[in-house]
Amino acid sequence: MNWKLTLAYDGTDFHGWQVQPDRPTVQGALADAIERVTGERVLPQGSGRTDAGVHALGQVASFRLNAPIPPANLHRALNRTLPPAIRVMGAEHAAEDFHARHSVSAKTYEYRIFRGEICSPWLARYVYALNWPLHVERMLAAVPLVVGEHDFTSFAATDPDLTTRQAEAADSGDDSDDGPETDGPGNVRRIFASELSLRETDEGELLVYRVRGSGFLHHMVRNLVGTFLDVGRGHFAAEDIPVILEKRSRAEAGATAPARGLFLDSVEY
Amino acid sequence: MNWKLTLAYDGTDFHGWQVQPDRPTVQGALADAIERVTGERVLPQGSGRTDAGVHALGQVASFRLNAPIPPANLHRALNRTLPPAIRVMGAEHAAEDFHARHSVSAKTYEYRIFRGEICSPWLARYVYALNWPLHVERMLAAVPLVVGEHDFTSFAATDPDLTTRQAEAADSGDDSDDGPETDGPGNVRRIFASELSLRETDEGELLVYRVRGSGFLHHMVRNLVGTFLDVGRGHFAAEDIPVILEKRSRAEAGATAPARGLFLDSVEY
Repeated sequence: MNWKLTLAYDGTDFHGWQVQPDRPTVQGALADAIERVTGERVLPQGSGRTDAGVHALGQVASFRLNAPIPPANLHRALNRTLPPAIRVMGAEHAAEDFHARHSVSAKTYEYRIFRGEICSPWLARYVYALNWPLHVERMLAAVPLVVGEHDFTSFAATDPDLTTRQAEAADSGDDSDDGPETDGPGNVRRIFASELSLRETDEGELLVYRVRGSGFLHHMVRNLVGTFLDVGRGHFAAEDIPVILEKRSRAEAGATAPARGLFLDSVEY
Repeated sequence: MNWKLTLAYDGTDFHGWQVQPDRPTVQGALADAIERVTGERVLPQGSGRTDAGVHALGQVASFRLNAPIPPANLHRALNRTLPPAIRVMGAEHAAEDFHARHSVSAKTYEYRIFRGEICSPWLARYVYALNWPLHVERMLAAVPLVVGEHDFTSFAATDPDLTTRQAEAADSGDDSDDGPETDGPGNVRRIFASELSLRETDEGELLVYRVRGSGFLHHMVRNLVGTFLDVGRGHFAAEDIPVILEKRSRAEAGATAPARGLFLDSVEY
């Protein structure tokens, strides 16, 4: 039987999604929990990697089990077994050809920036706290300029171990931060929506960036956020965004924003 | 110059308030930050200990510094130096005779219980997640029965290293979970208010217990909560609370509720 799980996790204390020897990872913790519950050792496939410190509200994982288990029972048993930092939000039987990564049609990421003076201890793990002045109007002008199909080389991680091209060559499909490699060749991706807004929470006001796309290169969302923040600080103008895209060079864009503000919000199939 | 700081902290990753060799503690982290900022080594006195895993919204600490520093500067510099899990919420000059523990007139604690089916990863560090059925009306009847002056021996930790009596004998005054020993002899304390309520949050509904008193014995709030939960489960009736108090024996009351749901809310002087 093929399974689809939807997962929320606090990435702070994990070395990312992908299983690694002797380090706590989300994929590893999930595989252990599935084995403890069912007796079957499987490697759940995620919709894509998330890096160390990146959180998820709706990561999706798929795997096959031989034992017939009602979804509600697997759901409850996994939540009793997993560490509290990982929660199964939904568990369902999936079509035989469903694959959490290969079947993706779109993903949405969210990046949270705290603008207040004192970032509370309960918020600190989940936001980038940043209280220098920002020209938010300029950021609002810059953010939509990445919508559409573009070559995002300027916003891709330069670490050669982690480039999408290598991942594709190896057919692991799992070496980009978050993604299916079905949306175009090389570093071309399609962004459907790119929005910045203010959100009131119990802990104060957040500046929230949300981006929905066909797929994302490794570090792409964090590099976009770092660049939009450079627009807010006046290092770039909004009109520089198309120029940066055009140059296809990582050196042209801004710094990588910290992992702790990033959430994989949801995955569409 | 005498100083008064108000502190919020996430206690999850600290071995409690009180400084210990080779273990991260809140008092130790604060002493280190003060030294790094001012060059002066002091041991800040808290309003009382909090145990490992217990949080604070408004812990108060006092200490003396020779260097003349404007409060706003010390405030900002400490928040730049402290780990994000500890925040200085207020910094002010205090009267010469102010002492964070000896001067306490009342303290308020809050205990948070999550009743939903899935406790999100962002809430898990800060609540006791408990989804068995509870007779909340019975708990509402039990909770006010501890108001007034009582001998709380039945609700005090039995660990002999941590009893208030020993702490008083040693004149450390710092060996109770939270408190000044000025409110009465032995294990007598005065409770001004004891209330249970429901609170809506971004992450779902919480059952919140708040208690305000002259002082508290070690583990007293967690033992009260554990006992009120036993009332909710039907192990005790509300009317058993006065009987349990009367017996002055830890064995009569319920279990100690987990540290992670407990917050030192505020301290009055």
